[in-house]
Parts: sequence; structure tokens; C-alpha cells
Amino acid sequence: MEDQILALRQEIAELKNQIGIMEDTHKIRCLHNIYGYYFDACLFEEIVDLFAEDGEVRFMGGIFKGRTGISRLYIDRLRKRHTNGHNGPVYGLLLDHLQLQDVVTVAPDRLTAKGRFRCFMQAGRHESTGQTRQWWEGGIYENEYVKEDGVWKIKVLDYRGLWHADFDTGWAHTPPNLYPFYSTTFPEDPLGPDALITENKPVLWPDTDVLPFHYPHPVTGEWWKKR
Amino acid sequence: MEDQILALRQEIAELKNQIGIMEDTHKIRCLHNIYGYYFDACLFEEIVDLFAEDGEVRFMGGIFKGRTGISRLYIDRLRKRHTNGHNGPVYGLLLDHLQLQDVVTVAPDRLTAKGRFRCFMQAGRHESTGQTRQWWEGGIYENEYVKEDGVWKIKVLDYRGLWHADFDTGWAHTPPNLYPFYSTTFPEDPLGPDALITENKPVLWPDTDVLPFHYPHPVTGEWWKKR
Amino acid sequence: MEDQILALRQEIAELKNQIGIMEDTHKIRCLHNIYGYYFDACLFEEIVDLFAEDGEVRFMGGIFKGRTGISRLYIDRLRKRHTNGHNGPVYGLLLDHLQLQDVVTVAPDRLTAKGRFRCFMQAGRHESTGQTRQWWEGGIYENEYVKEDGVWKIKVLDYRGLWHADFDTGWAHTPPNLYPFYSTTFPEDPLGPDALITENKPVLWPDTDVLPFHYPHPVTGEWWKKR
Repeated sequence: MEDQILALRQEIAELKNQIGIMEDTHKIRCLHNIYGYYFDACLFEEIVDLFAEDGEVRFMGGIFKGRTGISRLYIDRLRKRHTNGHNGPVYGLLLDHLQLQDVVTVAPDRLTAKGRFRCFMQAGRHESTGQTRQWWEGGIYENEYVKEDGVWKIKVLDYRGLWHADFDTGWAHTPPNLYPFYSTTFPEDPLGPDALITENKPVLWPDTDVLPFHYPHPVTGEWWKKR
Repeated sequence: MEDQILALRQEIAELKNQIGIMEDTHKIRCLHNIYGYYFDACLFEEIVDLFAEDGEVRFMGGIFKGRTGISRLYIDRLRKRHTNGHNGPVYGLLLDHLQLQDVVTVAPDRLTAKGRFRCFMQAGRHESTGQTRQWWEGGIYENEYVKEDGVWKIKVLDYRGLWHADFDTGWAHTPPNLYPFYSTTFPEDPLGPDALITENKPVLWPDTDVLPFHYPHPVTGEWWKKR
Repeated sequence: MEDQILALRQEIAELKNQIGIMEDTHKIRCLHNIYGYYFDACLFEEIVDLFAEDGEVRFMGGIFKGRTGISRLYIDRLRKRHTNGHNGPVYGLLLDHLQLQDVVTVAPDRLTAKGRFRCFMQAGRHESTGQTRQWWEGGIYENEYVKEDGVWKIKVLDYRGLWHADFDTGWAHTPPNLYPFYSTTFPEDPLGPDALITENKPVLWPDTDVLPFHYPHPVTGEWWKKR
């Protein structure tokens, strides 16, 4: 009888782990989708609070490290530029940042996770602001997550903007090397990153590349490698 | 031994609840995605059947209450306007209504739930219909759901169209106050809503606002408030 | 006491099945989203490896059967046309193939499953390639999956491109019958399908139709039928 109870206990422990992984997966999908809604709404303080203390953001070829670096990017640079420092949406600015196509993979120990997502943007300023501009953008996220005190946080947010298209002329006519990636770091550049990406460097349309996948091929089990 | 079995029974009850919440979450995501596919296909009767008897739709500043109000909106107004009363797609009408970026939260008692979703539309009429028109639209849903006799139904469908863009000219050139929100109710307006939204009123691009989130910040646990 | 243990064992078996279905659902969503990322990146060999040996692809009115037929489509036709035979992205080709709005339904025996997804494309070639072209496309997938040796694979990939729009002029001005569906099979057409779709034939915008749903109405339980 004791043996039977022990066996049941083990089965229950395994189920607990399985359901826990499904719950973690759900929380990470939500975490990323919530990030997307904050971004549209220019809630940059709320975005910074999604990160672990030692989190980092990879953006435009630069790496912003820790809460200090992440605040430099979102508060000092992006909030200043987009909303002139206001934490929230402003008249005539569109910054829609649709999130979709998630592939979330939780580690067996349920303390870390990875997620790939796609982003599709509609952005610009209304003509009545006197700064008319409108563009489409597509990109991919390959992120890492960490669970601290039972709460999932972003460890690495790696955003690769892949193509940018002026609304009127489209991606077929995007100028090559449309904008430069970071080449200088903080503090030389007072709003710059803490380091530069040196491996798997981002490229910009019309250049193309494969952003490596955090998962193996789901049928063959093989990891993709550049050939 | 009895104690051990009792403890196992309690653990199993807890697991049952956890897996039940994951199943509910899946059903609600599907419910909303299915709604989206019905909308594209102008299957308006099928949409009305997704609602609870005392459900409601919030649309364009109006509130349509119960099956009667909901039918007034979908059957008497939208179906009449889009397909001249036909329940299904018609030649040359595009009404694609992409659904994505879900954040679904099931209540602990598993009888109610809330969901935030994003919508991205491609719509218009082909030139061969003689009514050429084409536009992009972006919006957010903040919905409520109820489980009745084990079946999840829509309790509140709150759609906020946030921006509208003519295909040719784009969001940078959308006329302010592009279309009026409801200002008259049924029966004064025979196709109008049963009531008007008075709190968190919708705004239209180039005006912007934050549609409150049904969930707290996933890391800090704080609720967002307008400052 | 034995009775109580037997009852617990049954409850645990039921929970195992429930959590298994949730895990299967997650795997199938990922399988499809991964397919989408491979497609963007022109990783056609990786796509072929997602299929069961007796899998099939339904595309442009044709049915490509088994690994041989599927390779004929992806390797011999699409890879040749898009990347001139290179397995990976090439300069100046955009083939973004966003995947969203999943409705995944796993069969009770957990050996087969069905999934409906939406696709939204941004595609074309950059002007610097000398083959300037850019278009939007929308479509729906209604797929079937099979679990073989514990691994989920695509059994039927049924892609229905619903509308195609030139970037400059939009869906309102798409020429009717923009491109022909397959009318000849392999080997008469050396790159053609093994068979032609004869039921629920695809239609192309400005013609419209309902692609039947693999699921009943989630509230009424009724199956949709053309009336």
C-alpha cells in the first residue's frame, strides 16, 4: 500500500511540473503581449519595470545593460524623442507595435525561458502635428526570461527590426543603410549603449539574414546552422 | 494512511483547478479568434450566437444590450450595410479583421474571464462593385466572458477602433473626427445603442488615449492609473 | 482503501490526458509558427522536413502528395523561383509571412489534430535588384496534423490565399482572376501538383467564399453549412 501511495505521489509531482510549464508558457506570452501594449501607449516606465535587475536590451546593434542602461534607452532616449518626456500617449503620434507568432520554450528547471515573437509596426505622426511621417516596420524578437521570486521578468530583449518602409513608397524603395547602427558606447555617446553587438550582428533591408532560432527543428531535432 | 490519501486528494483537486484554468484560457482565445473569422466572412448570425443572453457590445461610443440590442447592431445595422442582409461574404467586399496579441485572464472561480486582444483590419470594396473604397484600421478589444452551463460566452465585447487610414493617403492624413460616435439611443435612433458610454469614452486618431488594462503590471503588481 | 487508491489513479489518468492535450495544442501552435519563420527565411528544406511521409500541401488549387510532391513544390518550384535554389534568404527579397489567430483542436485520442491560422504577407523585391515588385497578401490555413512516434508533424497544409494587393494600388484595384489556379498535374506539368482540388475549390478576390471551419460553433455546437 505504501508503494502504491509513493507511486501516486510521483505521478502527481510529474503532473505538477507539466502544468507548471504550461502556466509559465502562458505567463511569458502574456508578459510579451503586455510589453507590446505598453509600447504603443508610450508607457516607458512600465516597460522598464518588466526587466530583471541584470536584464538587457539589444537594439540597433547596441546592448543596454541593467536597469540603468535600460532606463537610458527607454526613458532618456525613446521617451524624450517620441513624447518629449511624457509617460503616455501624445496627440498625433502612432507607435502601434503588433505582437504575434510566439514560440515560447520554458527550461526544464522552470527558472528560465526563451521566446521568439514577431512585430509588425504602424507608426508616424499626423499632419496636424506639423511633423508628418508614416511608416511600416517588420521585425523579430528573440528574448530570454528569468523567474525571480516566482515572477517572470525579461532577461534579454533582443529586437531585430528587419525592414522599414515609408508608407507612400514601400519596402521596394527603402534606401539601403537607412539608419546607422550604434558605433559608439556610453558615456562617449551620452544616450548610447553599454556595449556593441559583435556576433550575429543585425542587418537591415534590403540586406537579409536569418536570426538564429532558440529551438531545434521540431521534427528532425536538428539545430539550424548557417551554411 | 487515510491522512496520506486525503493529502493526495487535495493535491489532485488543486491540479484539476490549474489545468481547468489553462483549458478555459485556451477556450477563450479560440472563442475570440473564431469571432474574428466569423466577422471576416460576414457570418453575423453566428456572431450574435457567441453572446450570453445578457451580453453587451460596446461600439462607437454606444452600448448595445442583450440579444435584442446585439442583433440590432449586427443584423439590422452591420449586415444590412455590409452585405445588404446576406449572412455570408459577398462579391468585392473585404472585411478582414485580424486578431492577435491576446492577454486572457480567468477568474479564480473559473466562472468569468477577461481578455485583451488587438485587431488589425484590411477593408473596402473592389472597383468592380462601383463603390471603390479601401482602408486600414487598428483597434483594441477589452472583453469579458462568462461560463454558463459549462460553455464560455461573450459577456462584454468592447471594441475600440483607434485609428483609421485611407489606403492611398495613410494615417498621417486621416481627417480629425473622421466619424461621429453615437449621440442618440434607441428607439430615437432606430438602429442606435441602448445607452451611451460615459466613462473611459473612446477617442479617435489623431487623438490618443490609454484603454485601461484589465490586469495589473505583471512584475510590480501595480494597477495602471491615468496621471 | 484499495478502492480509494483506484479512484485516485483514475483521476490522475484523466488529468494526464487533459494536460497532454494542452501540451499537444502548444506544440502544434509552435509547429505552425516555426513553419512561418522558416518560410520568411526561405528555409525550404526545413519546411519539407515538417511534414509526415504521407503529408500533403494544398496550394493554388493543386494537391502535392507525399515527400516527393511536397519537395517538387517547395524545392523545385518555390526555392528555384524565389532564391534561385539557395536554401536561405537572399538580398532584396521580402517574403514575410505573418502567422496569427490560431484555433487548434486536438482529437480525443491525441494522435491527430486540426488547426486554423491566418496569414498576412509583405512581399516583393527591392528596386536595387532590378526586379522591383511589392505586394500585400492575406490568407487562411486549415491544416491537419499527425503524431508519429510522439512527434507532431504536418499531415495536410491547406493554404488559401484570399486576396492579393499591389502595394501601390491596393486590393480595391486587384485585377479579377489575377493568377490562374493549377489546371494540369504532374508529370504533364513537371512542377505541377499530383492532383487538383475538386471540392471547396479556392476562389480569389474580388470573389469571396467561406473556407469551412474544422470546428463547430463554440456556443451552439452547430456545424456551419453553406446555405
